[in-house]
Amino acid sequence: MPDLVYRGGAFHADTAVEVDAGAGRILRVGPVADLASPGAAVERLEARALLPGFVNAHSHAFQRLLRGRTQWRPASVPHADFWSWREAMYAAALALSPEDVYHVSRFCFLEMLRAGYTAVGEFHYLHRDPDGRRYDDPLELAQRVVAAAAEVGIRVALLNVCYAAGGIGKPLLPEQRRFATPELDGFLDDSAVLLEAYAKESLLTIGLAPHSVRAVPRDWLKELHAWAGRRELVLHMHVAEQAAEVEECRAAYSKPPVELLAEEGVLDTRFTAVHATHISLEEAARLGGAGAGVCACPTTERDLGDGILPAEELVGAGAALAIGSDSQAVIDPFEEMRLLEYHERLRRLRRVVLTEPRNGRLEVAPALMHAGTAGGARALGIDAGRIEPGALADLVAIDLAHPSLAGWSADTLAAMLALSAPAAVVTDVWVGGRRRIEQGRHAAEAEAAAAFRRVAAQLALP
Amino acid sequence: MPDLVYRGGAFHADTAVEVDAGAGRILRVGPVADLASPGAAVERLEARALLPGFVNAHSHAFQRLLRGRTQWRPASVPHADFWSWREAMYAAALALSPEDVYHVSRFCFLEMLRAGYTAVGEFHYLHRDPDGRRYDDPLELAQRVVAAAAEVGIRVALLNVCYAAGGIGKPLLPEQRRFATPELDGFLDDSAVLLEAYAKESLLTIGLAPHSVRAVPRDWLKELHAWAGRRELVLHMHVAEQAAEVEECRAAYSKPPVELLAEEGVLDTRFTAVHATHISLEEAARLGGAGAGVCACPTTERDLGDGILPAEELVGAGAALAIGSDSQAVIDPFEEMRLLEYHERLRRLRRVVLTEPRNGRLEVAPALMHAGTAGGARALGIDAGRIEPGALADLVAIDLAHPSLAGWSADTLAAMLALSAPAAVVTDVWVGGRRRIEQGRHAAEAEAAAAFRRVAAQLALP
Repeated sequence: MPDLVYRGGAFHADTAVEVDAGAGRILRVGPVADLASPGAAVERLEARALLPGFVNAHSHAFQRLLRGRTQWRPASVPHADFWSWREAMYAAALALSPEDVYHVSRFCFLEMLRAGYTAVGEFHYLHRDPDGRRYDDPLELAQRVVAAAAEVGIRVALLNVCYAAGGIGKPLLPEQRRFATPELDGFLDDSAVLLEAYAKESLLTIGLAPHSVRAVPRDWLKELHAWAGRRELVLHMHVAEQAAEVEECRAAYSKPPVELLAEEGVLDTRFTAVHATHISLEEAARLGGAGAGVCACPTTERDLGDGILPAEELVGAGAALAIGSDSQAVIDPFEEMRLLEYHERLRRLRRVVLTEPRNGRLEVAPALMHAGTAGGARALGIDAGRIEPGALADLVAIDLAHPSLAGWSADTLAAMLALSAPAAVVTDVWVGGRRRIEQGRHAAEAEAAAAFRRVAAQLALP
Repeated sequence: MPDLVYRGGAFHADTAVEVDAGAGRILRVGPVADLASPGAAVERLEARALLPGFVNAHSHAFQRLLRGRTQWRPASVPHADFWSWREAMYAAALALSPEDVYHVSRFCFLEMLRAGYTAVGEFHYLHRDPDGRRYDDPLELAQRVVAAAAEVGIRVALLNVCYAAGGIGKPLLPEQRRFATPELDGFLDDSAVLLEAYAKESLLTIGLAPHSVRAVPRDWLKELHAWAGRRELVLHMHVAEQAAEVEECRAAYSKPPVELLAEEGVLDTRFTAVHATHISLEEAARLGGAGAGVCACPTTERDLGDGILPAEELVGAGAALAIGSDSQAVIDPFEEMRLLEYHERLRRLRRVVLTEPRNGRLEVAPALMHAGTAGGARALGIDAGRIEPGALADLVAIDLAHPSLAGWSADTLAAMLALSAPAAVVTDVWVGGRRRIEQGRHAAEAEAAAAFRRVAAQLALP
């Protein structure tokens, strides 16, 4: 029993959480006196508050290798941008063996657990070998990612990426050859095999991910959406991350990306638009009206110079926000959450933008915490992100004695966490009821870090 | 001897640092074989890199009490901003006893040390008692701040604030009564007493701080500048944090703040403009041309909805950037540094904006590290922020085995730290050669936190 439990948008004292270890779900939540069977052991989590685990709804795990390696430009180049960064990213993608993919993903997932993420949506587009050939087992690399997640114990939604073009109506670039899914039927067949193979995994779900309007032909979208819909799978897509994508889309289809997706019937509550930095207000209304999700990745969007998504309009229109660590420049759900609000403050030059009503006023913290937990769970189609009976037992304990939280009260703690605290406040993390981080440490940390370092040391980038 | 030492904008191996403990300064830097006297003890800092201590050039320590307490608005208020935040800040300022000021400042300074700040410029404007009367000892509260810094061992530049008006040509507001310095002569007399009283303190310097063009009459500026200049003191001033200040200044003086300061002859290399979020490009050029410093406080500027300063133009024009934790919403020099760059990326939608030439290319990390260390030291007028013989021995050790740094090399470590790492990488901190943080802990932490909590618990805010 922790000192405080975050539930229904606020912290509550005298609340214990009982977990069904077999099912990996929360069994009961309530006053300890009501819950504990006589003589049952109650774990006293001293000076701890318990939160739902954070959900990282958009990740490219292998990009963890790029950290610190793209923060420069040649003196001859007047400025760097997303597109020059992408060259380094492609070089990394081309360099990795299946074993490398495993080791990099494993360490990256471990770093996520340590920061308080209990689930990750892995937007997986590494399919082929470095020469662009299919592996003998076409799911070779997907399996490596899944194995990496299982090894460290993070819940994963493998978002199988469809990637067919190097731009609208353009062939793939040579450096995109590992991503290639040139035929829709083949892609769906592979996806069916994935679904079948992992149907019984308790920590794994599958989703579909048409990469973007740049990389997927318009006439595939309906079928991808229908295929996913029949199986109740989530559908994720990069949308309007860069102005150039919007321009290309307008030039080819005479409409911006979200309008195109609406026309193809893709927008619904199982759809998540990733980024949405360059959408119009009409498109924000369209996403909201469809009840779609929007996954912001603000630590990446600031790093890549993507820009700021119109979060206030999206939420106002009814879209559900989620967060993602994307390029792994930073892995910290607290920072990711607060940037949703802080980037809006910088854009609008006012405070307290994203709010939910609480205690007779409008509070920022519940809105941000919702995006970091339940919003992400919704995007990945998992019943997590809330401490309620029946939900998955994905939980995070934080250290109430951490200096960044000094002065907390039950009323201010959520705001301190959402706006001010570092991920270093996280002490313990449970996924499906099983503790994977204990006192800030993961049992596999030394080995996983050593293997990651070996891959990083071998990687040469331009 | 650590694994790596940050010196001259890059990390170097096989480098030891010898400290003169009596003088609190660095004595020698070089290969360990050259330095160690035969038989001398060499402290081996295993898996550590050594950096110059970070300098927090703009702080209001008592505002640490506001953390988590202003992240909401009444449902009836359409939006919150800097000015509504200021009401809560004034309420906190009015509530504190001298003992409270000591306890809050002490804990806040301790939190800074733990994050890697070795020096702080405390922009001190709490002068009078809660009724607006002078204390029997007019320096009562200044002494509490100084004692708090001395107790935890952080180096402090006490920036004595001059605050005479509630707006240009307007009387002070009732809630500004504790800040009042109604007469210039009286303010300078108090400053002279401060200088005299603390002349021999090794960890303390004094500077002058006309609060802003809002709060200080134009015809005081020349004399304040001359008085500071004769004593070689630094002069700090809030400049153009909010658009309303610029409008008020234009209305009263027909020119914006920096133009006014230029006309009054205040701009020089000892001057630091704090914020500068709403300056024009001409004013940026003016600050740069004078060789002035500019202290950005981006974690506060995003929290208060102030906006983004034109960092690229300022640096291009010759201004020296520094960082400050200001309102203490976040205390993390790494986050503060990276936001200088990241806010520019969000504003310009491109990458790699603030750079220094290194290794035949333009790198972001040295520019950010410079702002976080040497730039701040320059703003405070102290010889720190660099690991060189003769400089103050203010040093920070970071944990090279921290997960956020996995995959580092000597070439990428600075970029990982400046753009990606949390303050949790800091393990040990020395000020004037004396270790104040050891393995992430300060000896006074429990006691200081308990006293802080007592003050926080008593504070009622609107």
